[in-house]
Amino acid sequence: MRESELLAHIYERSTGLPPVISVGPGDDAAEIVVEGGRALVTVDQLVEGRHYDPATTDVDLVARKAVGRSVSDIAAMGGRPTCAFATAALREGFADADRLFDRMAAWAKGWGCPLAGGDIATVDGPTVLTVTVMGTPHAGRGSVLRSGARVGDSVYVTGKVGGAFASGRHLMFEPRVREGSWLCDALGERLRAMIDVSDGVGRDAGRVAKMSGARIEIDAGALPLHEDAGDWREAVGAGEDYELLFCASGEVAERCAETGTVITKIGRVVEGEGCFVVAPDGARVDARELGWDHG
Amino acid sequence: MRESELLAHIYERSTGLPPVISVGPGDDAAEIVVEGGRALVTVDQLVEGRHYDPATTDVDLVARKAVGRSVSDIAAMGGRPTCAFATAALREGFADADRLFDRMAAWAKGWGCPLAGGDIATVDGPTVLTVTVMGTPHAGRGSVLRSGARVGDSVYVTGKVGGAFASGRHLMFEPRVREGSWLCDALGERLRAMIDVSDGVGRDAGRVAKMSGARIEIDAGALPLHEDAGDWREAVGAGEDYELLFCASGEVAERCAETGTVITKIGRVVEGEGCFVVAPDGARVDARELGWDHG
Repeated sequence: MRESELLAHIYERSTGLPPVISVGPGDDAAEIVVEGGRALVTVDQLVEGRHYDPATTDVDLVARKAVGRSVSDIAAMGGRPTCAFATAALREGFADADRLFDRMAAWAKGWGCPLAGGDIATVDGPTVLTVTVMGTPHAGRGSVLRSGARVGDSVYVTGKVGGAFASGRHLMFEPRVREGSWLCDALGERLRAMIDVSDGVGRDAGRVAKMSGARIEIDAGALPLHEDAGDWREAVGAGEDYELLFCASGEVAERCAETGTVITKIGRVVEGEGCFVVAPDGARVDARELGWDHG
Repeated sequence: MRESELLAHIYERSTGLPPVISVGPGDDAAEIVVEGGRALVTVDQLVEGRHYDPATTDVDLVARKAVGRSVSDIAAMGGRPTCAFATAALREGFADADRLFDRMAAWAKGWGCPLAGGDIATVDGPTVLTVTVMGTPHAGRGSVLRSGARVGDSVYVTGKVGGAFASGRHLMFEPRVREGSWLCDALGERLRAMIDVSDGVGRDAGRVAKMSGARIEIDAGALPLHEDAGDWREAVGAGEDYELLFCASGEVAERCAETGTVITKIGRVVEGEGCFVVAPDGARVDARELGWDHG
Protein backbone atom coordinates (compact mmCIF):
# COMPACT_ATOMS: atom_id res chain seq x y z
CA MET A 1 0.00 0.00 0.00
CA ARG A 2 1.31 3.42 -0.92
CA GLU A 3 2.02 5.83 1.91
CA SER A 4 -0.58 8.33 0.79
CA GLU A 5 -3.16 5.57 0.47
CA LEU A 6 -2.31 4.22 3.89
CA LEU A 7 -2.84 7.66 5.35
CA ALA A 8 -6.12 8.10 3.49
CA HIS A 9 -7.24 4.69 4.69
CA ILE A 10 -6.47 5.61 8.26
CA TYR A 11 -8.25 8.92 8.07
CA GLU A 12 -11.31 7.40 6.47
CA ARG A 13 -11.89 5.65 9.76
CA SER A 14 -11.52 8.92 11.66
CA THR A 15 -15.23 9.55 11.45
CA GLY A 16 -17.06 12.11 13.49
CA LEU A 17 -14.54 14.94 13.23
CA PRO A 18 -15.55 17.72 15.61
CA PRO A 19 -16.61 21.17 14.36
CA VAL A 20 -13.21 22.55 15.38
CA ILE A 21 -11.77 20.81 12.29
CA SER A 22 -13.47 22.65 9.44
CA VAL A 23 -11.29 21.01 6.75
CA GLY A 24 -10.00 17.61 7.80
CA PRO A 25 -7.37 15.22 6.47
CA GLY A 26 -7.06 14.80 2.72
CA ASP A 27 -6.48 18.32 1.48
CA ASP A 28 -3.21 20.27 1.19
CA ALA A 29 -3.71 21.59 4.72
CA ALA A 30 -6.28 21.24 7.47
CA GLU A 31 -8.39 24.22 8.43
CA ILE A 32 -9.32 24.61 12.06
CA VAL A 33 -11.65 26.91 13.95
CA VAL A 34 -9.91 28.82 16.73
CA GLU A 35 -12.00 30.01 19.65
CA GLY A 36 -11.03 33.30 21.26
CA GLY A 37 -8.48 34.15 18.59
CA ARG A 38 -5.58 32.38 20.29
CA ALA A 39 -4.19 28.90 19.85
CA LEU A 40 -1.53 26.86 21.63
CA VAL A 41 0.81 24.77 19.50
CA THR A 42 3.42 22.26 20.58
CA VAL A 43 5.41 19.60 18.76
CA ASP A 44 7.44 16.71 20.11
CA GLN A 45 9.30 13.72 18.73
CA LEU A 46 9.33 10.10 19.91
CA VAL A 47 12.36 8.12 18.80
CA GLU A 48 12.47 4.30 18.70
CA GLY A 49 15.19 2.91 20.94
CA ARG A 50 15.45 6.09 22.91
CA HIS A 51 11.99 6.96 24.15
CA TYR A 52 10.75 3.38 23.98
CA ASP A 53 12.14 -0.11 23.49
CA PRO A 54 10.60 -1.56 20.31
CA ALA A 55 11.27 -5.12 21.49
CA THR A 56 9.13 -4.81 24.59
CA THR A 57 6.67 -1.99 23.89
CA ASP A 58 3.30 -2.66 22.30
CA VAL A 59 2.39 -0.37 19.41
CA ASP A 60 -0.57 0.92 21.42
CA LEU A 61 1.76 2.22 24.13
CA VAL A 62 4.10 3.77 21.56
CA ALA A 63 1.12 5.59 20.09
CA ARG A 64 -0.05 6.62 23.55
CA LYS A 65 3.31 8.09 24.54
CA ALA A 66 3.81 9.87 21.20
CA VAL A 67 0.50 11.71 21.56
CA GLY A 68 0.58 12.03 25.35
CA ARG A 69 3.86 13.94 25.45
CA SER A 70 2.45 16.77 23.36
CA VAL A 71 -0.90 16.74 25.15
CA SER A 72 1.05 17.12 28.41
CA ASP A 73 2.68 20.28 27.02
CA ILE A 74 -0.76 21.78 26.40
CA ALA A 75 -1.76 20.81 29.96
CA ALA A 76 1.33 22.62 31.26
CA MET A 77 0.05 25.85 29.71
CA GLY A 78 -3.32 25.35 31.43
CA GLY A 79 -4.90 24.76 28.02
CA ARG A 80 -7.31 22.30 26.48
CA PRO A 81 -6.21 20.17 23.48
CA THR A 82 -8.27 20.69 20.32
CA CYS A 83 -6.65 18.85 17.41
CA ALA A 84 -3.48 16.96 16.52
CA PHE A 85 -1.25 16.16 13.55
CA ALA A 86 0.87 13.01 13.49
CA THR A 87 3.77 12.15 11.21
CA ALA A 88 5.75 8.95 11.15
CA ALA A 89 9.11 8.16 9.61
CA LEU A 90 8.77 4.40 9.90
CA ARG A 91 11.64 1.92 9.97
CA GLU A 92 11.65 0.03 6.68
CA GLY A 93 9.75 -3.22 7.05
CA PHE A 94 7.68 -1.98 10.00
CA ALA A 95 4.48 -3.96 9.49
CA ASP A 96 2.14 -2.30 11.95
CA ALA A 97 1.73 1.20 10.48
CA ASP A 98 -2.00 0.81 10.16
CA ARG A 99 -2.46 -0.06 13.82
CA LEU A 100 0.05 2.56 14.96
CA PHE A 101 -1.91 5.37 13.28
CA ASP A 102 -5.18 3.84 14.36
CA ARG A 103 -4.02 3.94 17.98
CA MET A 104 -2.54 7.45 17.68
CA ALA A 105 -5.92 8.56 16.29
CA ALA A 106 -7.73 6.85 19.18
CA TRP A 107 -5.54 8.35 21.91
CA ALA A 108 -5.70 11.78 20.32
CA LYS A 109 -9.49 11.60 20.10
CA GLY A 110 -9.72 10.36 23.68
CA TRP A 111 -7.70 13.32 24.91
CA GLY A 112 -9.90 15.76 23.02
CA CYS A 113 -7.65 16.46 20.03
CA PRO A 114 -8.65 14.30 17.03
CA LEU A 115 -6.08 13.87 14.26
CA ALA A 116 -6.60 16.49 11.57
CA GLY A 117 -3.65 15.57 9.35
CA GLY A 118 -0.28 13.94 9.08
CA ASP A 119 2.29 12.26 6.89
CA ILE A 120 4.00 8.88 6.54
CA ALA A 121 7.47 8.12 5.20
CA THR A 122 9.85 5.18 5.54
CA VAL A 123 13.47 5.37 6.68
CA ASP A 124 16.44 3.05 6.82
CA GLY A 125 16.78 3.65 10.56
CA PRO A 126 14.79 4.03 13.76
CA THR A 127 11.14 5.01 13.61
CA VAL A 128 10.52 8.67 14.50
CA LEU A 129 7.02 9.85 15.41
CA THR A 130 6.33 13.58 15.48
CA VAL A 131 3.09 14.83 17.00
CA THR A 132 1.85 18.41 16.83
CA VAL A 133 -0.98 19.20 19.25
CA MET A 134 -2.98 22.41 19.19
CA GLY A 135 -4.99 23.72 22.08
CA THR A 136 -7.07 26.54 23.46
CA PRO A 137 -5.67 28.66 26.30
CA HIS A 138 -7.69 28.77 29.51
CA ALA A 139 -10.46 31.30 28.91
CA GLY A 140 -10.14 33.12 32.23
CA ARG A 141 -6.52 32.75 33.24
CA GLY A 142 -4.88 32.75 29.82
CA SER A 143 -1.70 30.75 29.16
CA VAL A 144 0.40 29.85 32.18
CA LEU A 145 4.04 30.48 31.28
CA ARG A 146 7.27 29.28 32.84
CA SER A 147 8.35 32.84 33.49
CA GLY A 148 5.77 33.99 36.03
CA ALA A 149 7.20 32.64 39.31
CA ARG A 150 7.90 35.31 41.98
CA VAL A 151 9.94 35.29 45.18
CA GLY A 152 7.65 34.15 47.99
CA ASP A 153 5.63 31.71 45.84
CA SER A 154 5.43 28.07 46.89
CA VAL A 155 6.27 25.22 44.53
CA TYR A 156 3.94 22.23 44.04
CA VAL A 157 3.74 19.06 42.06
CA THR A 158 0.74 16.94 41.07
CA GLY A 159 0.67 13.19 41.71
CA LYS A 160 3.89 11.32 42.48
CA VAL A 161 7.32 11.29 40.87
CA GLY A 162 10.27 8.97 40.34
CA GLY A 163 10.91 5.62 38.75
CA ALA A 164 8.89 6.36 35.63
CA PHE A 165 11.17 4.60 33.19
CA ALA A 166 11.90 1.45 35.23
CA SER A 167 8.23 1.00 36.14
CA GLY A 168 6.90 1.60 32.62
CA ARG A 169 4.84 4.56 33.81
CA HIS A 170 6.56 6.69 31.13
CA LEU A 171 4.39 4.78 28.65
CA MET A 172 1.14 4.98 30.56
CA PHE A 173 0.84 8.43 32.06
CA GLU A 174 -2.37 10.39 31.85
CA PRO A 175 -1.59 13.96 30.75
CA ARG A 176 -2.72 16.33 33.51
CA VAL A 177 -5.10 18.32 31.31
CA ARG A 178 -7.96 18.42 33.80
CA GLU A 179 -5.63 19.26 36.68
CA GLY A 180 -3.97 22.10 34.73
CA SER A 181 -7.30 23.56 33.76
CA TRP A 182 -8.68 23.19 37.29
CA LEU A 183 -5.65 24.97 38.74
CA CYS A 184 -6.41 27.88 36.39
CA ASP A 185 -10.04 27.86 37.54
CA ALA A 186 -9.18 27.64 41.22
CA LEU A 187 -6.14 29.91 41.45
CA GLY A 188 -6.48 32.38 38.58
CA GLU A 189 -3.57 34.78 38.60
CA ARG A 190 -2.25 33.16 41.81
CA LEU A 191 -1.13 30.31 39.54
CA ARG A 192 2.11 31.98 38.51
CA ALA A 193 4.10 29.47 36.48
CA MET A 194 3.75 25.86 35.35
CA ILE A 195 5.71 23.18 33.48
CA ASP A 196 5.30 19.45 32.94
CA VAL A 197 8.00 17.26 34.46
CA SER A 198 9.48 15.52 31.43
CA ASP A 199 13.19 15.85 32.18
CA GLY A 200 13.16 15.54 35.98
CA VAL A 201 11.97 17.76 38.80
CA GLY A 202 15.41 19.35 39.10
CA ARG A 203 15.92 20.28 35.48
CA ASP A 204 12.34 21.38 34.91
CA ALA A 205 12.18 23.44 38.10
CA GLY A 206 15.49 24.94 36.98
CA ARG A 207 13.86 26.01 33.72
CA VAL A 208 11.07 27.79 35.61
CA ALA A 209 13.67 29.43 37.86
CA LYS A 210 15.75 30.63 34.93
CA MET A 211 12.83 32.03 32.98
CA SER A 212 11.40 33.68 36.11
CA GLY A 213 14.71 35.22 37.21
CA ALA A 214 14.62 33.55 40.62
CA ARG A 215 15.84 30.48 42.51
CA ILE A 216 13.76 27.44 43.34
CA GLU A 217 14.50 25.39 46.46
CA ILE A 218 13.07 21.88 46.64
CA ASP A 219 12.75 20.05 49.98
CA ALA A 220 13.96 16.51 49.32
CA GLY A 221 11.86 15.12 52.15
CA ALA A 222 8.69 16.67 50.77
CA LEU A 223 8.84 14.98 47.36
CA PRO A 224 5.87 12.62 46.81
CA LEU A 225 7.74 9.53 45.63
CA HIS A 226 6.21 6.48 43.99
CA GLU A 227 6.69 3.38 46.15
CA ASP A 228 8.91 1.80 43.51
CA ALA A 229 10.97 4.96 42.95
CA GLY A 230 14.56 5.20 44.12
CA ASP A 231 15.57 7.84 46.67
CA TRP A 232 14.96 11.56 46.27
CA ARG A 233 18.12 11.95 44.15
CA GLU A 234 16.73 9.63 41.51
CA ALA A 235 13.34 11.37 41.57
CA VAL A 236 14.91 14.81 41.15
CA GLY A 237 17.26 13.68 38.40
CA ALA A 238 15.16 11.24 36.39
CA GLY A 239 12.41 12.27 34.03
CA GLU A 240 9.31 11.15 32.19
CA ASP A 241 6.89 11.70 35.09
CA TYR A 242 4.65 14.06 33.09
CA GLU A 243 3.28 15.53 36.30
CA LEU A 244 2.68 19.29 36.57
CA LEU A 245 5.14 21.37 38.59
CA PHE A 246 3.76 24.80 39.40
CA CYS A 247 4.40 27.91 41.47
CA ALA A 248 1.56 29.65 43.27
CA SER A 249 0.93 32.29 45.91
CA GLY A 250 -1.53 31.85 48.77
CA GLU A 251 -3.44 28.74 49.69
CA VAL A 252 -3.54 25.69 47.40
CA ALA A 253 -5.83 22.68 47.93
CA GLU A 254 -4.31 19.30 48.74
CA ARG A 255 -6.17 17.62 45.92
CA CYS A 256 -7.60 18.54 42.55
CA ALA A 257 -11.34 18.75 43.28
CA GLU A 258 -12.19 17.40 39.83
CA THR A 259 -9.95 14.35 39.66
CA GLY A 260 -8.78 13.73 43.20
CA THR A 261 -5.14 13.95 42.11
CA VAL A 262 -2.91 14.76 45.08
CA ILE A 263 -1.11 18.11 45.07
CA THR A 264 2.03 18.37 47.18
CA LYS A 265 4.00 21.42 48.27
CA ILE A 266 7.65 20.61 47.55
CA GLY A 267 9.49 23.92 47.84
CA ARG A 268 9.62 27.66 47.40
CA VAL A 269 10.76 30.46 45.13
CA VAL A 270 13.57 32.56 46.64
CA GLU A 271 16.04 35.23 45.55
CA GLY A 272 18.90 33.98 43.39
CA GLU A 273 19.14 31.65 40.44
CA GLY A 274 19.13 27.95 39.66
CA CYS A 275 17.41 25.05 41.38
CA PHE A 276 18.72 23.62 44.64
CA VAL A 277 17.53 20.64 46.63
CA VAL A 278 17.61 20.81 50.41
CA ALA A 279 18.70 17.30 51.40
CA PRO A 280 17.38 15.62 54.57
CA ASP A 281 20.65 16.54 56.32
CA GLY A 282 20.16 20.21 55.43
CA ALA A 283 22.80 20.34 52.70
CA ARG A 284 21.91 22.32 49.56
CA VAL A 285 22.57 20.33 46.37
CA ASP A 286 22.63 21.99 42.96
CA ALA A 287 19.97 20.16 40.94
CA ARG A 288 22.23 20.29 37.91
CA GLU A 289 24.40 17.69 39.63
CA LEU A 290 21.41 15.34 39.73
CA GLY A 291 19.99 15.91 36.26
CA TRP A 292 20.28 13.86 33.17
CA ASP A 293 20.81 14.95 29.64
CA HIS A 294 18.23 13.52 27.32
CA GLY A 295 20.56 14.49 24.44
CA MET B 1 25.88 21.07 23.60
CA ARG B 2 22.67 19.55 24.90
CA GLU B 3 19.75 19.40 22.51
CA SER B 4 17.58 21.69 24.57
CA GLU B 5 20.42 24.19 24.84
CA LEU B 6 21.06 24.03 21.12
CA LEU B 7 17.42 24.79 20.47
CA ALA B 8 17.44 27.64 22.98
CA HIS B 9 20.58 29.02 21.38
CA ILE B 10 18.99 28.94 17.97
CA TYR B 11 15.82 30.62 19.13
CA GLU B 12 17.69 33.35 20.94
CA ARG B 13 18.78 34.57 17.54
CA SER B 14 15.20 34.53 16.27
CA THR B 15 14.69 38.11 17.31
CA GLY B 16 11.86 40.28 16.18
CA LEU B 17 9.08 37.73 16.49
CA PRO B 18 5.92 39.13 14.92
CA PRO B 19 2.80 39.92 16.98
CA VAL B 20 1.16 36.75 15.62
CA ILE B 21 3.41 34.77 17.97
CA SER B 22 2.21 35.86 21.41
CA VAL B 23 4.26 33.21 23.27
CA GLY B 24 7.36 32.19 21.37
CA PRO B 25 9.90 29.39 21.68
CA GLY B 26 11.02 28.37 25.15
CA ASP B 27 7.77 27.52 26.91
CA ASP B 28 5.82 24.24 26.93
CA ALA B 29 3.88 25.39 23.90
CA ALA B 30 3.75 28.43 21.67
CA GLU B 31 0.70 30.67 21.72
CA ILE B 32 -0.34 32.27 18.48
CA VAL B 33 -2.88 34.89 17.54
CA VAL B 34 -5.34 33.71 14.90
CA GLU B 35 -7.01 36.31 12.71
CA GLY B 36 -10.55 35.62 11.61
CA GLY B 37 -10.97 32.62 13.86
CA ARG B 38 -9.63 30.09 11.33
CA ALA B 39 -6.17 28.68 10.82
CA LEU B 40 -4.58 26.45 8.21
CA VAL B 41 -2.19 23.75 9.43
CA THR B 42 0.00 21.42 7.41
CA VAL B 43 2.91 19.15 8.28
CA ASP B 44 5.42 17.43 6.04
CA GLN B 45 8.57 15.38 6.44
CA LEU B 46 11.90 15.61 4.60
CA VAL B 47 13.98 12.43 4.72
CA GLU B 48 17.73 12.35 4.07
CA GLY B 49 18.62 10.13 1.12
CA ARG B 50 15.11 10.22 -0.22
CA HIS B 51 14.11 13.84 -0.59
CA TYR B 52 17.69 15.07 -0.86
CA ASP B 53 21.17 13.64 -1.32
CA PRO B 54 23.24 14.56 1.74
CA ALA B 55 26.48 14.15 -0.19
CA THR B 56 25.67 16.85 -2.71
CA THR B 57 23.10 19.11 -1.03
CA ASP B 58 24.13 22.11 1.00
CA VAL B 59 22.46 22.44 4.40
CA ASP B 60 20.90 25.71 3.28
CA LEU B 61 19.05 23.93 0.48
CA VAL B 62 17.96 21.12 2.80
CA ALA B 63 16.53 23.75 5.14
CA ARG B 64 14.88 25.55 2.22
CA LYS B 65 13.17 22.43 0.91
CA ALA B 66 12.04 21.28 4.37
CA VAL B 67 10.25 24.57 5.01
CA GLY B 68 9.23 25.22 1.40
CA ARG B 69 7.24 22.00 1.04
CA SER B 70 4.90 22.95 3.85
CA VAL B 71 4.67 26.59 2.77
CA SER B 72 3.63 25.30 -0.66
CA ASP B 73 0.75 23.41 0.96
CA ILE B 74 -0.52 26.65 2.50
CA ALA B 75 -0.21 28.33 -0.91
CA ALA B 76 -2.31 25.53 -2.42
CA MET B 77 -5.16 26.46 -0.06
CA GLY B 78 -4.90 30.10 -1.17
CA GLY B 79 -3.63 30.99 2.29
CA ARG B 80 -0.85 33.08 3.77
CA PRO B 81 1.77 31.44 6.04
CA THR B 82 1.92 32.86 9.57
CA CYS B 83 4.23 30.73 11.71
CA ALA B 84 6.16 27.48 11.61
CA PHE B 85 7.44 24.71 13.89
CA ALA B 86 10.50 22.65 12.95
CA THR B 87 11.69 19.37 14.43
CA ALA B 88 14.80 17.45 13.50
CA ALA B 89 15.76 13.86 14.19
CA LEU B 90 19.41 14.28 13.26
CA ARG B 91 21.73 11.50 12.17
CA GLU B 92 24.21 10.88 14.98
CA GLY B 93 27.38 12.85 14.37
CA PHE B 94 25.68 15.44 12.15
CA ALA B 95 27.80 18.49 12.87
CA ASP B 96 25.79 21.27 11.27
CA ALA B 97 22.64 21.35 13.41
CA ASP B 98 23.18 24.96 14.36
CA ARG B 99 23.36 26.12 10.75
CA LEU B 100 20.49 23.84 9.69
CA PHE B 101 18.11 25.42 12.23
CA ASP B 102 19.49 28.85 11.50
CA ARG B 103 18.67 28.41 7.83
CA MET B 104 15.25 26.85 8.51
CA ALA B 105 14.51 29.91 10.68
CA ALA B 106 15.69 32.25 7.92
CA TRP B 107 13.65 30.61 5.16
CA ALA B 108 10.59 30.41 7.40
CA LYS B 109 10.90 34.09 8.28
CA GLY B 110 11.46 35.02 4.65
CA TRP B 111 8.27 33.25 3.63
CA GLY B 112 6.30 35.03 6.35
CA CYS B 113 6.09 32.24 8.93
CA PRO B 114 8.81 32.66 11.61
CA LEU B 115 9.69 29.61 13.69
CA ALA B 116 7.66 29.59 16.89
CA GLY B 117 8.91 26.28 18.29
CA GLY B 118 10.46 22.92 17.60
CA ASP B 119 12.45 20.01 18.88
CA ILE B 120 15.79 18.30 18.26
CA ALA B 121 16.69 14.64 18.75
CA THR B 122 19.44 12.40 17.42
CA VAL B 123 18.93 9.06 15.67
CA ASP B 124 21.09 6.19 14.51
CA GLY B 125 19.78 6.56 10.98
CA PRO B 126 18.87 9.13 8.33
CA THR B 127 18.04 12.66 9.35
CA VAL B 128 14.29 13.41 9.31
CA LEU B 129 13.06 17.00 9.32
CA THR B 130 9.40 17.66 10.10
CA VAL B 131 7.98 21.12 9.49
CA THR B 132 4.53 22.28 10.57
CA VAL B 133 3.38 25.50 8.93
CA MET B 134 0.29 27.42 9.98
CA GLY B 135 -1.48 29.96 7.86
CA THR B 136 -4.46 32.25 7.44
CA PRO B 137 -7.11 31.38 4.84
CA HIS B 138 -7.76 33.99 2.17
CA ALA B 139 -10.07 36.56 3.75
CA GLY B 140 -12.48 36.88 0.84
CA ARG B 141 -12.41 33.51 -0.90
CA GLY B 142 -11.79 31.25 2.09
CA SER B 143 -9.81 28.04 1.75
CA VAL B 144 -9.56 26.55 -1.73
CA LEU B 145 -10.10 22.79 -1.44
CA ARG B 146 -9.31 19.95 -3.79
CA SER B 147 -12.95 18.97 -3.95
CA GLY B 148 -14.49 21.99 -5.68
CA ALA B 149 -13.85 21.23 -9.37
CA ARG B 150 -16.97 21.02 -11.56
CA VAL B 151 -17.61 19.63 -15.04
CA GLY B 152 -16.94 22.45 -17.52
CA ASP B 153 -14.09 24.02 -15.54
CA SER B 154 -10.72 24.45 -17.20
CA VAL B 155 -7.49 23.19 -15.62
CA TYR B 156 -4.42 25.42 -15.29
CA VAL B 157 -0.90 25.27 -13.94
CA THR B 158 1.43 28.06 -12.83
CA GLY B 159 5.00 28.27 -14.14
CA LYS B 160 6.60 25.28 -15.86
CA VAL B 161 6.84 21.62 -14.98
CA GLY B 162 9.13 18.63 -15.46
CA GLY B 163 12.72 17.75 -14.71
CA ALA B 164 12.62 19.12 -11.16
CA PHE B 165 14.75 16.41 -9.60
CA ALA B 166 17.43 16.13 -12.30
CA SER B 167 17.80 19.91 -12.55
CA GLY B 168 17.93 20.52 -8.81
CA ARG B 169 14.85 22.74 -8.97
CA HIS B 170 13.21 20.51 -6.33
CA LEU B 171 15.61 22.19 -3.88
CA MET B 172 15.15 25.76 -5.06
CA PHE B 173 11.48 26.29 -5.79
CA GLU B 174 9.68 29.38 -4.62
CA PRO B 175 6.35 28.37 -3.03
CA ARG B 176 3.55 30.01 -5.00
CA VAL B 177 2.07 31.89 -2.07
CA ARG B 178 1.57 35.17 -3.89
CA GLU B 179 0.15 33.43 -6.94
CA GLY B 180 -2.30 31.40 -4.84
CA SER B 181 -3.47 34.48 -2.99
CA TRP B 182 -3.74 36.51 -6.21
CA LEU B 183 -5.84 33.79 -7.83
CA CYS B 184 -8.24 34.07 -4.88
CA ASP B 185 -8.35 37.85 -5.29
CA ALA B 186 -8.83 37.69 -9.05
CA LEU B 187 -11.18 34.75 -9.42
CA GLY B 188 -13.03 34.51 -6.10
CA GLU B 189 -15.50 31.64 -6.24
CA ARG B 190 -14.56 30.97 -9.87
CA LEU B 191 -11.36 29.45 -8.45
CA ARG B 192 -12.91 26.06 -7.77
CA ALA B 193 -10.10 23.76 -6.65
CA MET B 194 -6.33 23.91 -6.18
CA ILE B 195 -3.40 21.65 -5.27
CA ASP B 196 0.37 21.98 -5.39
CA VAL B 197 2.16 19.65 -7.79
CA SER B 198 4.40 17.65 -5.50
CA ASP B 199 3.84 14.14 -6.86
CA GLY B 200 3.44 14.89 -10.56
CA VAL B 201 0.75 16.59 -12.64
CA GLY B 202 -0.95 13.25 -13.27
CA ARG B 203 -1.19 12.06 -9.71
CA ASP B 204 -2.07 15.45 -8.26
CA ALA B 205 -4.70 16.20 -10.91
CA GLY B 206 -6.03 12.72 -10.16
CA ARG B 207 -6.45 13.68 -6.53
CA VAL B 208 -8.46 16.76 -7.47
CA ALA B 209 -10.57 14.64 -9.84
CA LYS B 210 -11.24 12.02 -7.17
CA MET B 211 -12.18 14.50 -4.47
CA SER B 212 -14.36 16.48 -6.89
CA GLY B 213 -16.17 13.44 -8.28
CA ALA B 214 -15.16 14.19 -11.86
CA ARG B 215 -12.55 13.37 -14.50
CA ILE B 216 -9.65 15.61 -15.50
CA GLU B 217 -8.26 15.50 -19.02
CA ILE B 218 -4.80 16.98 -19.61
CA ASP B 219 -3.63 17.93 -23.12
CA ALA B 220 -0.05 16.67 -23.36
CA GLY B 221 0.85 19.26 -25.96
CA ALA B 222 -0.33 22.12 -23.74
CA LEU B 223 1.96 21.31 -20.80
CA PRO B 224 4.44 24.15 -20.16
CA LEU B 225 7.66 22.12 -19.96
CA HIS B 226 11.00 23.35 -18.68
CA GLU B 227 13.62 23.31 -21.44
CA ASP B 228 15.61 20.65 -19.62
CA ALA B 229 12.58 18.48 -18.86
CA GLY B 230 12.01 15.19 -20.63
CA ASP B 231 8.92 14.66 -22.75
CA TRP B 232 5.35 15.12 -21.54
CA ARG B 233 5.30 11.61 -20.06
CA GLU B 234 8.10 12.52 -17.68
CA ALA B 235 6.48 15.82 -16.75
CA VAL B 236 3.14 14.16 -16.01
CA GLY B 237 4.69 11.35 -14.02
CA ALA B 238 7.52 13.05 -12.16
CA GLY B 239 7.03 15.30 -9.18
CA GLU B 240 8.56 17.99 -7.03
CA ASP B 241 7.53 20.92 -9.24
CA TYR B 242 5.67 22.71 -6.44
CA GLU B 243 3.63 24.65 -8.98
CA LEU B 244 -0.08 25.25 -8.43
CA LEU B 245 -2.57 23.21 -10.44
CA PHE B 246 -6.07 24.68 -10.30
CA CYS B 247 -9.51 24.41 -11.82
CA ALA B 248 -11.49 27.54 -12.68
CA SER B 249 -14.54 28.63 -14.60
CA GLY B 250 -14.60 31.61 -16.97
CA GLU B 251 -11.65 33.69 -18.09
CA VAL B 252 -8.23 33.37 -16.44
CA ALA B 253 -5.32 35.75 -17.08
CA GLU B 254 -2.21 34.44 -18.82
CA ARG B 255 0.03 35.74 -16.06
CA CYS B 256 -0.20 36.50 -12.37
CA ALA B 257 -0.46 40.29 -12.31
CA GLU B 258 1.56 40.49 -9.09
CA THR B 259 4.53 38.29 -9.93
CA GLY B 260 4.44 37.83 -13.68
CA THR B 261 4.32 34.05 -13.29
CA VAL B 262 2.92 32.43 -16.42
CA ILE B 263 -0.42 30.63 -16.12
CA THR B 264 -1.16 27.94 -18.71
CA LYS B 265 -4.40 26.18 -19.52
CA ILE B 266 -3.58 22.48 -19.69
CA GLY B 267 -6.92 20.69 -19.67
CA ARG B 268 -10.51 20.44 -18.58
CA VAL B 269 -12.87 18.87 -16.07
CA VAL B 270 -15.29 16.38 -17.66
CA GLU B 271 -17.77 13.72 -16.58
CA GLY B 272 -16.22 10.52 -15.26
CA GLU B 273 -13.39 9.75 -12.92
CA GLY B 274 -9.60 9.63 -12.87
CA CYS B 275 -7.02 11.68 -14.75
CA PHE B 276 -6.28 11.02 -18.41
CA VAL B 277 -3.70 12.60 -20.67
CA VAL B 278 -4.57 13.23 -24.30
CA ALA B 279 -1.32 12.38 -26.11
CA PRO B 280 -0.25 14.31 -29.23
CA ASP B 281 -1.55 11.42 -31.37
CA GLY B 282 -4.97 11.71 -29.72
CA ALA B 283 -4.65 8.59 -27.57
CA ARG B 284 -6.00 8.82 -24.02
CA VAL B 285 -3.47 7.59 -21.44
CA ASP B 286 -4.47 6.89 -17.84
CA ALA B 287 -2.21 9.12 -15.73
CA ARG B 288 -1.85 6.31 -13.22
CA GLU B 289 0.32 4.55 -15.79
CA LEU B 290 2.71 7.51 -15.76
CA GLY B 291 2.81 8.24 -12.05
CA TRP B 292 5.45 7.42 -9.52
CA ASP B 293 4.98 6.19 -6.03
CA HIS B 294 6.92 8.25 -3.56
CA GLY B 295 6.43 5.42 -1.08
